[in-house]
Amino acid sequence: MDSVFLMLESREHPMHVGGLCLFEKTADPAGFARTMYEDMLTGADAVTSVFRRRPERAFGVFPALRWDLDDDIDLSYHVRLLSLPAPGRVRELLELISMLHGSLLDRHRPLWEVYVIEGLADGRIATYAKTHHALMDGVSAVRAWQRTLATDPDARDCVPAWRTDRRRTEKPGASGLSGLVRTVSRTVGTVPQTVSGARALSRRLPDPLPYQAPETMFNVPISGARRFAAQSWPLARLRAVTETTGATLNDVVLAMCAGALRRYLSAENALPARPLVAMVPVSLRADGAEETGGNAVGAVLCDLGTDEPDPRQRLDRTRSSMDRTKSTMAELTPLQVLGLSALNVVGLTLPSVPLLGGGPPPFNIVISNVPGAQRPRYWNGVRVEAIYPASIPLDGQAINITTVGFGDAMHFGIVGCRRAVPRLQRLIGMLDDTLTELETAVG
Amino acid sequence: MDSVFLMLESREHPMHVGGLCLFEKTADPAGFARTMYEDMLTGADAVTSVFRRRPERAFGVFPALRWDLDDDIDLSYHVRLLSLPAPGRVRELLELISMLHGSLLDRHRPLWEVYVIEGLADGRIATYAKTHHALMDGVSAVRAWQRTLATDPDARDCVPAWRTDRRRTEKPGASGLSGLVRTVSRTVGTVPQTVSGARALSRRLPDPLPYQAPETMFNVPISGARRFAAQSWPLARLRAVTETTGATLNDVVLAMCAGALRRYLSAENALPARPLVAMVPVSLRADGAEETGGNAVGAVLCDLGTDEPDPRQRLDRTRSSMDRTKSTMAELTPLQVLGLSALNVVGLTLPSVPLLGGGPPPFNIVISNVPGAQRPRYWNGVRVEAIYPASIPLDGQAINITTVGFGDAMHFGIVGCRRAVPRLQRLIGMLDDTLTELETAVG
Repeated sequence: MDSVFLMLESREHPMHVGGLCLFEKTADPAGFARTMYEDMLTGADAVTSVFRRRPERAFGVFPALRWDLDDDIDLSYHVRLLSLPAPGRVRELLELISMLHGSLLDRHRPLWEVYVIEGLADGRIATYAKTHHALMDGVSAVRAWQRTLATDPDARDCVPAWRTDRRRTEKPGASGLSGLVRTVSRTVGTVPQTVSGARALSRRLPDPLPYQAPETMFNVPISGARRFAAQSWPLARLRAVTETTGATLNDVVLAMCAGALRRYLSAENALPARPLVAMVPVSLRADGAEETGGNAVGAVLCDLGTDEPDPRQRLDRTRSSMDRTKSTMAELTPLQVLGLSALNVVGLTLPSVPLLGGGPPPFNIVISNVPGAQRPRYWNGVRVEAIYPASIPLDGQAINITTVGFGDAMHFGIVGCRRAVPRLQRLIGMLDDTLTELETAVG
Repeated sequence: MDSVFLMLESREHPMHVGGLCLFEKTADPAGFARTMYEDMLTGADAVTSVFRRRPERAFGVFPALRWDLDDDIDLSYHVRLLSLPAPGRVRELLELISMLHGSLLDRHRPLWEVYVIEGLADGRIATYAKTHHALMDGVSAVRAWQRTLATDPDARDCVPAWRTDRRRTEKPGASGLSGLVRTVSRTVGTVPQTVSGARALSRRLPDPLPYQAPETMFNVPISGARRFAAQSWPLARLRAVTETTGATLNDVVLAMCAGALRRYLSAENALPARPLVAMVPVSLRADGAEETGGNAVGAVLCDLGTDEPDPRQRLDRTRSSMDRTKSTMAELTPLQVLGLSALNVVGLTLPSVPLLGGGPPPFNIVISNVPGAQRPRYWNGVRVEAIYPASIPLDGQAINITTVGFGDAMHFGIVGCRRAVPRLQRLIGMLDDTLTELETAVG
């Protein structure tokens, strides 16, 4: 599975997942950023094996991937300090992340990069971490980077995720995640998207699919350039909707996305008559498993009900669709689900299979919800306000929405092909409108 | 020839040339940068055809390259505004350029990017322009970007190089270049480097080569990561050496590089007994030719005399070597020289040819001298202090030195593979030491 993610990669499809962290305002943000950066440059001799992994050889037609361990890691390459141009708004930050997220990782080196970013006018600083999907999936990446941070605001001994001497006061795996519902701990994943992929999916799923994905503006070839948008909503607002309706938090996230996509496609005069189908990755990692890197990702399909104008009805459609698929998935073993994903992903790389055309796409968009920590997190006493995930668009899948429930908010990260998804940042306002609409609809 | 540069490209070998411009101190550098950036974002409907070129199809084994013209250019992708982290020294600027120079251009778009960079503590700002070698060679790139700038400090109607409505007050091609000696107007070039390349070169040059390149630490496989260093020296200092010795400015540039490389290799305990051989690209463009893009590049070999401890003797070695090769080149037609280069470059792409090993490299380093304008240049009244070129290392050629004679200084840009050429920035001090040594030696 790891090697599939390396095989799939091309300049149009960088296969890394990103994470943007916003740290609260401090008195000397440039000094804080510089200190964090310099802390991160130390300890090159104490980097854990996951963060020293690099592919052993360049890729041919039949990739013979083996992980090689880099014994001479140059941290000044992997860790970088950047600043934002004036006026240093979140807009400038998102422009920078769009740019960083669009460039490929260097396969001659361990497949990760971290940026410390100062220059926000409001006194906050940000970090952006980029990890190849072959190194670890989204869930593992969020956990690994999260372990960098302390739950104790008084701790001053934080060390980066890649160091072996990281804080011993917290056991790995017990980092505040246990309270989360893990059955639907979805993760950033890659996905079938060819015609053959669709057929394989429909053949292999135990039940006939209750719906078919329409053709949309998102299901087109993509370029290598990205646009990134991000925003947070208080979990209290989402929870109020779950309490009235009996839906899960994930159902509400999907309903927010469904409403925003309906609004976006209407504004672009591109709303299809049939409802959009979302691919929702599902983590296959057992609840207690250690984060040892690697990939363990399955996927289910979800009816987004974008043909439905009523927000409450739409939520119910999404919810019952998820309930149906979850029971389907429960009948498969984790290995079967993994095999299903891998098979479909491998389908993408066969040169004889046309990437697009000849039928409807198997689904329209990937929407993932990655679990994050519930308790606040700190780097040497400075609190993390938000963690925004940045995932992977693909040919035929020009947009991806990934969310992280962290602290008291749900954090949305949207990545799209810069060309195929114009005015992507509008989706932020549309997500907000949809949540408000849902709140009104459910009283 | 254009398609060769596209074929050659891989993640380890981005095939773009870069140019870093430093603008003099202004009262409001962030405002100046922002205004320049916003000026550059306008006029997407008036972009000249060279800057709208993109390859028509993705690359297979046999690339069938045709230039497609992008009619829907997104300037907000091509033009970017960045800032430097505190303390905003030249060191932070060079770190940023190292990073930007190491990432690939997106082939779905016209093959260029421009960065406006603020945040230098001394009140200067910088621009970094990145142009694919397939779009234009180094000489054309320097000229094209230079045309953006005015010779008149009072001009306030500057428009970017890519716009058709550029300042009509100066004729293209008459932009202060005429005073330069064009016979040795060398340009950024790519180069043979395989064993077969070496053999082809020695077979095709009319005379037997008077020397053979030794194996050095520079002639190894490279990674995709780059380090960039840059510095300027007053032309008056270089000219004083030419006046005493009868050498040309180019001979002095080569002698400075030779001395610095000797010092660097000695410090790394890696100075070979035999002298290093430099490949020196030569422009084949006729003196009066318009800058219409495309490539016209040949190459000669030069004995750098790095085995010679005496600086004056070393200068004489380099100088007589260049004199010999220039007369050799004069016996070939421009087309013959171009064919020679193309043949050797194509050799690189044959998968059956091992990239390295099995004999000495044909040469050790590429050193180019690109002609620049003699008169000062301005962007809306703000003077350009320096133009530093950033060229292309290759497998087997881990370091490249390119210079631009612009205004009253010679500007050196050094690009190396971050892994194969450690402590690259030391070469700056070593160039300075060598010039001082030369000045002393020639009295």
